[in-house]
Amino acid sequence: MNNFQPKSNNFSTRVKDSFARQTAMQTLGIEIDTVQAGEVTLSMPYNTTLTQQHGFIHAGVITTGMDSAAGYAAFSLMADDAAVLTVEFKVNLLSPASGESFLFKGSVIKPGRTLTFTEAKAYAVNAGQEKLIATMSATMMAVVGRGEIKG
Amino acid sequence: MNNFQPKSNNFSTRVKDSFARQTAMQTLGIEIDTVQAGEVTLSMPYNTTLTQQHGFIHAGVITTGMDSAAGYAAFSLMADDAAVLTVEFKVNLLSPASGESFLFKGSVIKPGRTLTFTEAKAYAVNAGQEKLIATMSATMMAVVGRGEIKG
Amino acid sequence: MNNFQPKSNNFSTRVKDSFARQTAMQTLGIEIDTVQAGEVTLSMPYNTTLTQQHGFIHAGVITTGMDSAAGYAAFSLMADDAAVLTVEFKVNLLSPASGESFLFKGSVIKPGRTLTFTEAKAYAVNAGQEKLIATMSATMMAVVGRGEIKG
Amino acid sequence: MNNFQPKSNNFSTRVKDSFARQTAMQTLGIEIDTVQAGEVTLSMPYNTTLTQQHGFIHAGVITTGMDSAAGYAAFSLMADDAAVLTVEFKVNLLSPASGESFLFKGSVIKPGRTLTFTEAKAYAVNAGQEKLIATMSATMMAVVGRGEIKG
Repeated sequence: MNNFQPKSNNFSTRVKDSFARQTAMQTLGIEIDTVQAGEVTLSMPYNTTLTQQHGFIHAGVITTGMDSAAGYAAFSLMADDAAVLTVEFKVNLLSPASGESFLFKGSVIKPGRTLTFTEAKAYAVNAGQEKLIATMSATMMAVVGRGEIKG
Repeated sequence: MNNFQPKSNNFSTRVKDSFARQTAMQTLGIEIDTVQAGEVTLSMPYNTTLTQQHGFIHAGVITTGMDSAAGYAAFSLMADDAAVLTVEFKVNLLSPASGESFLFKGSVIKPGRTLTFTEAKAYAVNAGQEKLIATMSATMMAVVGRGEIKG
Repeated sequence: MNNFQPKSNNFSTRVKDSFARQTAMQTLGIEIDTVQAGEVTLSMPYNTTLTQQHGFIHAGVITTGMDSAAGYAAFSLMADDAAVLTVEFKVNLLSPASGESFLFKGSVIKPGRTLTFTEAKAYAVNAGQEKLIATMSATMMAVVGRGEIKG
Repeated sequence: MNNFQPKSNNFSTRVKDSFARQTAMQTLGIEIDTVQAGEVTLSMPYNTTLTQQHGFIHAGVITTGMDSAAGYAAFSLMADDAAVLTVEFKVNLLSPASGESFLFKGSVIKPGRTLTFTEAKAYAVNAGQEKLIATMSATMMAVVGRGEIKG
């Protein structure tokens, strides 16, 4: 799909280790499907405890999945000493989040030393059919040499 | 703060009833603080099960709170037969979400028959001090006469 | 590329007529390249009177081209009695707008009765090579039956 | 309004000199009203050569004014060796740009070493009355030590 060269030989393990520390992912039931250099796909089953007032998955939860997918897509191209932070994102909600499960596909559009521009798409899956329900454009930032990142 | 005239005499009850049906709010521990015509404030305690990889609250969770605050600010000005849907939002993350608790303040910038333009701000609260950590601009849509909204 | 069915048999003429009334397009030197149902491409030569402080085309000018491309992509799928207005857009600026000329490609992601979700991409062209320099996601609104649209 | 401390003693001159090199500003008739540390206001008369299809000022032109106002608000807080680039912005168009003239007010929300988060508002002025017609949230980047910035 793309020709991005990861700076870390270890990028897949780095993504999985960092993802495992995101307790929000476990709480929301989001798991890693695939990790490639510059592309990360996550999945989540429908869950009645994550809905908005009409029974669809809350837009914020869909956003959480897209943010993690896009953030880790960016992180997969960063050097071994870099951490990743989200600077901003914009989300368009095309259709209600109605599905048996959901896919969040994050991809890098343009990597950079400091800033990486990414996109993500969310799909509802019903009977094996994927339907695009939301899109994100997001700017990710590489943070190097701050030791622990503190608030 | 503003002079918005609610179309529903019942707007506060309508907001609270709809909010109570958002199961995601209970799962994330988000509660209503105040409901005024065109302004809704929500709050959430820090929770170790909602973090990203550095121990801060996940940006998606902060977004979920802002989206609900902004959406209900818009809904508070809508007629009794209207439902509200989020069309799109953009979020800037100014500082890591590090705090004892968090406030999400949504407000209407410009109400409209179909579209309502809103903003939201997220604050981290530490020792009673509020710090702005994120901002949202969001477009909300009034949906009338669709019976139940279906995916 | 897509299978969108235009509601107007006349969509191409409608786009061109409306575009011709956008005096800003002539002032900026932006012209129509192609009009298809749901996809419009515009082009603009480099012009030293449209730059920012470093001699690149101003981000606002690039945005103007993308907004028109996306707006007319949406308009091409609207009914004969509809006008189009931009609700909102978000732009990421990937690279400085340095080129002999520029292309603005707008496309519909999801048409709707009231709202149409679109994207646009801006390319700098040098020696026949296109380089992606900016992306837009935009929400367009169909306005019907207002006679003239007034401020 | 704010308590931002400029890093440059010369910030006002630096803003005006850089603004004067933006040829797009002269082409669009945009001028500086006021420059303060972290806040810049620009103005533009109505001009029939800058309209969209209904005779209002084109959304892209309004965006150009807001982008420059926000960018120079950020630049006013940067060090003497820094240049400023726009990373991204999001614009909501609240009302048609119908007015005798227009004001673009840019302000810094949070300055930073690399990224500065800004907002801008556009107002239509009729008979001395200002009406909010558009809002922008934008991320600006300080670029240091690249000599000339090249595309």
